[in-house]
Amino acid sequence: MSSTLHVTVWNEYRHERSDQRVSAIYPEGIHATIAQALSKDTAIQVRTATLDEPEHGLTEEVLNSTDVLLWWGHQAHGEVRDAIVDRVHKRVLAGMGLIVLHSGHYSKIFQRLMGTTCNLKWREENDKERLWIVAPGHPITEGLGEYIEIEHEEMYGEPFDIPAPETLVFVSWFSGGEIFRSGACYSRGKGKIFYFRPGHETLPTYHHPDVQRVIANAVRWAAPTPSASPIFGNTPSLEKSK
Amino acid sequence: MSSTLHVTVWNEYRHERSDQRVSAIYPEGIHATIAQALSKDTAIQVRTATLDEPEHGLTEEVLNSTDVLLWWGHQAHGEVRDAIVDRVHKRVLAGMGLIVLHSGHYSKIFQRLMGTTCNLKWREENDKERLWIVAPGHPITEGLGEYIEIEHEEMYGEPFDIPAPETLVFVSWFSGGEIFRSGACYSRGKGKIFYFRPGHETLPTYHHPDVQRVIANAVRWAAPTPSASPIFGNTPSLEKSK
Amino acid sequence: MSSTLHVTVWNEYRHERSDQRVSAIYPEGIHATIAQALSKDTAIQVRTATLDEPEHGLTEEVLNSTDVLLWWGHQAHGEVRDAIVDRVHKRVLAGMGLIVLHSGHYSKIFQRLMGTTCNLKWREENDKERLWIVAPGHPITEGLGEYIEIEHEEMYGEPFDIPAPETLVFVSWFSGGEIFRSGACYSRGKGKIFYFRPGHETLPTYHHPDVQRVIANAVRWAAPTPSASPIFGNTPSLEKSK
Amino acid sequence: MSSTLHVTVWNEYRHERSDQRVSAIYPEGIHATIAQALSKDTAIQVRTATLDEPEHGLTEEVLNSTDVLLWWGHQAHGEVRDAIVDRVHKRVLAGMGLIVLHSGHYSKIFQRLMGTTCNLKWREENDKERLWIVAPGHPITEGLGEYIEIEHEEMYGEPFDIPAPETLVFVSWFSGGEIFRSGACYSRGKGKIFYFRPGHETLPTYHHPDVQRVIANAVRWAAPTPSASPIFGNTPSLEKSK
Repeated sequence: MSSTLHVTVWNEYRHERSDQRVSAIYPEGIHATIAQALSKDTAIQVRTATLDEPEHGLTEEVLNSTDVLLWWGHQAHGEVRDAIVDRVHKRVLAGMGLIVLHSGHYSKIFQRLMGTTCNLKWREENDKERLWIVAPGHPITEGLGEYIEIEHEEMYGEPFDIPAPETLVFVSWFSGGEIFRSGACYSRGKGKIFYFRPGHETLPTYHHPDVQRVIANAVRWAAPTPSASPIFGNTPSLEKSK
Repeated sequence: MSSTLHVTVWNEYRHERSDQRVSAIYPEGIHATIAQALSKDTAIQVRTATLDEPEHGLTEEVLNSTDVLLWWGHQAHGEVRDAIVDRVHKRVLAGMGLIVLHSGHYSKIFQRLMGTTCNLKWREENDKERLWIVAPGHPITEGLGEYIEIEHEEMYGEPFDIPAPETLVFVSWFSGGEIFRSGACYSRGKGKIFYFRPGHETLPTYHHPDVQRVIANAVRWAAPTPSASPIFGNTPSLEKSK
Repeated sequence: MSSTLHVTVWNEYRHERSDQRVSAIYPEGIHATIAQALSKDTAIQVRTATLDEPEHGLTEEVLNSTDVLLWWGHQAHGEVRDAIVDRVHKRVLAGMGLIVLHSGHYSKIFQRLMGTTCNLKWREENDKERLWIVAPGHPITEGLGEYIEIEHEEMYGEPFDIPAPETLVFVSWFSGGEIFRSGACYSRGKGKIFYFRPGHETLPTYHHPDVQRVIANAVRWAAPTPSASPIFGNTPSLEKSK
Repeated sequence: MSSTLHVTVWNEYRHERSDQRVSAIYPEGIHATIAQALSKDTAIQVRTATLDEPEHGLTEEVLNSTDVLLWWGHQAHGEVRDAIVDRVHKRVLAGMGLIVLHSGHYSKIFQRLMGTTCNLKWREENDKERLWIVAPGHPITEGLGEYIEIEHEEMYGEPFDIPAPETLVFVSWFSGGEIFRSGACYSRGKGKIFYFRPGHETLPTYHHPDVQRVIANAVRWAAPTPSASPIFGNTPSLEKSK
């Protein structure tokens, strides 16, 4: 597939407009920083969408023309309308890739796809985080060294109430004594899903080159595979029965 | 764990009361037949619950004292109240085992736990079904030969819209030309889940000794593991930070 | 990765030189047919290697410049020298992709990588085979319909003594009553491995367009991911201990 | 299965006879300490075997009457005879459970079963280790809190060159900055395998009550499942072909 990949970066976009600490780091929003980083790959065409746009910026038209959707949310998960969650869910099952970032673990769409609470431990004390690769050779690790180090991050700790990942790519070490499954691959229907832990709003994580690299790798990995649509329901037999 | 296992067999119990073909095979309901089979193991204490009882027979009290819940439903999935589904969901995450049978694939609780539609192909033409073991040595296969043969069954065919099973135990061959992942293990939270395909209401499948054996094995496999409850939320560090 | 993919198709190449039924179908060898099919993708550069060449055609130089190796063997597994098996093993762990075809299930290299006997059931009676996709959306299924049908093939049946696949892509239905896990993905070290069942030497399976398509998809999927080499052994601490 | 479980604890038993630091902690050998702990469960019958006994203490008779084998080795992996490794391998595939402890990661039998080098990082500086449970509800975690803390242990760090575990039960945090997949479940043939990381010979790890508990849980989890033996080879069709 040499063709263009259409990516939509969705962001709640509230912290950046109400908290100076956040806007100092992401003046045009976390989505803008991520979009800009992805745009370096000329094969990726990026647009953004945010909570307070009509239909949260996720109209049928936008979603139907999105190959991979990124999701960052935190304080307003409850404001995401169920009808839009249904729409995203359907698109993922139909093949759209989904990259869930950081506090997006608690979004309705991630909970819906996982079937669990997606709850976890957390602490905002600027722990050091070191993400170790435990799936060497996985496409999402392209170009990385043997770990990613982030000087200051919010801590997320186990238990992380998710299904066992189909592929566990990263496990984080935190200076405060915890570990966390911080890079996790799933497939649901025809869609590929990647959860990636780092990215607290008060810290410059999305400016980190390795974090940007992982997100770009994940986008390419999650690209839809063109193939037949599933056929469900009552079906005649393919062989003469008995 | 030598102690008694408390099992609740839940059944929609509608077909048996409206369709003579079904009541001829399961005069007191599918749940009664399954319960009777399980009762042969004196370490298992069984009760039943059905849709038309108050709270569908699944009060807090019943669920809290249930180690493993079995679920058979078909024509009335939509009548199961969401509040009861929430309750069962919570109990599974807290450790209760769940065995989902046949058309229960389309129940609200299974869809909730899987995060997918759980849709599939089907055909009611009394195909021959042969369930091959692909996880030899798994506790759910205890006492079986190398496959289970069922002379007549409803066909379920792929694609089966579920997450890839953590352990795939059985794959079915059907005389009409299809295959199906017919025995699938999952864990969600502290709970173990097993989906087992056979069991069409118009056929004597639940009288089949190997089918009964699989269900009894699955009940033992899905028994809760006593261990600490998960601790979520804001948490102080275990180590001196920096 | 827009760069060229270097592929080596390895074949035992004995049947074709001793059995007219085989040479009628694959006059220049199974490897030549597969190589020709792969060559349609201009981003793939193919060469071949066979058992009776010096070092089985798999010199250090050849292997070190191979991104993905395909392996077909049958009657002469025992003649493959252990030193060459070691060499291939090392290269797979270092990132080279490996596609094991049909009777290659019983090759030394596949057994070494799997850690099991890789034994199975078989029958040469020209069963009909239908390979159902059970991992919709997987890159290896690109461009396929919902199943692949092969009018005549050797039957392989369960139990197939392999570790549970990391991703199970295809399950085969056979007219004689068996099923088989016929498309299975693994990773070992940095290398990706795909086992693909069809391809009996007396049948024109490798001329089948869908079989060719799967093999080409698998080659692209198994391409190495450029990333840091693993660092093993005694290592100083990254943090001040205590 | 209320019947007795027959367990054999195998130990290299060299450090204890040559190094006073080790014999001070394990005067009769690591195997004796583990065996004694397991014996508290009256349903478990334990014996031990060591490298320097004839046939390493693993005669056909011993292995054939062993339900679960535990393996501790370190400095003399190369002295374990290949014929004995073959014998153990065969028994595992036939259903015998295998618990591989600590430096046993580099034993011939574990490498054979995994198909990889099983290499890793290490450091002997008495790091603090904290094993976090990432598979809550798994039988091997019975009776545990949310983590196990070991004040001083040898560090093992990623990359750990193993296949992705079928179930990852524990991940270790080390004070020096590393993480490690320290509790990993596999099945091979009919046998269940559990790798458990802690247990350096110069430290009293096997006297730790939670470590003893995990080992006992693992033994019960790895018990063989009585079921049909696999049937391989040429086989007549079950259905009339065409």
